[in-house]
Amino acid sequence: MAGRTVRDERAEATREAILATAERLFAERGVYVVSNRQVSEAAGQGNNAAVGYHFGTKADLVRAIARKHAQQVERVRERLLREIGDSTDVRDWVACLVRPVLEHLAELDGPTWYARFCAQVLTDPALHEIMAEEALASPALRQTLDGFNRCLPELPLEVRVERGDMARNLIVHMCAERERALAENTATPRSSWHDAATGLIDGIVGLWLAPVTR
Amino acid sequence: MAGRTVRDERAEATREAILATAERLFAERGVYVVSNRQVSEAAGQGNNAAVGYHFGTKADLVRAIARKHAQQVERVRERLLREIGDSTDVRDWVACLVRPVLEHLAELDGPTWYARFCAQVLTDPALHEIMAEEALASPALRQTLDGFNRCLPELPLEVRVERGDMARNLIVHMCAERERALAENTATPRSSWHDAATGLIDGIVGLWLAPVTR
Repeated sequence: MAGRTVRDERAEATREAILATAERLFAERGVYVVSNRQVSEAAGQGNNAAVGYHFGTKADLVRAIARKHAQQVERVRERLLREIGDSTDVRDWVACLVRPVLEHLAELDGPTWYARFCAQVLTDPALHEIMAEEALASPALRQTLDGFNRCLPELPLEVRVERGDMARNLIVHMCAERERALAENTATPRSSWHDAATGLIDGIVGLWLAPVTR
Repeated sequence: MAGRTVRDERAEATREAILATAERLFAERGVYVVSNRQVSEAAGQGNNAAVGYHFGTKADLVRAIARKHAQQVERVRERLLREIGDSTDVRDWVACLVRPVLEHLAELDGPTWYARFCAQVLTDPALHEIMAEEALASPALRQTLDGFNRCLPELPLEVRVERGDMARNLIVHMCAERERALAENTATPRSSWHDAATGLIDGIVGLWLAPVTR
């Protein structure tokens, strides 16, 4: 902590408050409709320009939230990668794609907003590239995609792209739906993020290996 | 047209303008953040209370939009049901669930907002029941679900619920994503709604028939 001043610590606390508040507001209301000014106010900042001062644009703020989570997901994925080694079973690689995200959600303390935040950002035309960039900056994700592609049966290009889109939509929206149900105290088909991951992995393996109608 | 006055016709035109405007605004910005006043204004109504006068609450307005489309989807589904008769092939019943929605989107003239409207309403805790009610009011959908359940292999209850959630999320979000890509003139894996339906049906059959990990 040498050289770390009270001023540094206060700035760090402000940044954390802004990140947490923005994630919640974006998750619940949508990224498009929430302004930096609203985030600053809801984060308890007297200065309405606090987001701009600490982060820059809304895209920069979204990137900072995405990066914080991506780094935590990365650590879980590194561990799973060590466990599966050079497996040739598609299911192991799908698990390595899916499970880190749901384990990260399970590890977060108390209520979460990250899954709904992702769902909102990924449907925003101007911002969804940011999520992809932050995710693919992770060596563990690239290694997982390589391993997955090595054991996937041959598929026509459009089917490959389409099934990638389907798998991504399933992960994002099944997590967001489960997170919303937990927040609203309504029923979920599975009692834990771990079991939800198992079901999601089964389904995604099924869709990747399904016969192709020409 | 006996008894139909100029006043009736004007009211009908106003209702249609409000429905189309609300669908577009809800699809692009979210149902939660768009007020009835904003819908009235964007629909060119001098009277800001036009939505209230013609439809009632926001929930009533959402229901009117959902019903209009559900009736059109129903007609396509009735035709497909006649074609498959008492098939025992899961794929025929999945096709009967999926294809009417995408054929309806293909039949709408020009740009569409219905898929994104559905995605927004289905993630709104207060409104998603409305969509379910309007859809299930359709005898053709209930008949399709019965036929589907008859040929589905036995599955644990939580897996059945979970795969139903996965299939619904795939239909809703793959359609919304394709509609968004068409609106923004970006690439889509398939060149038509018909081919997109074929790929979606293959994937959904795969996930329903996937082995279950205990």
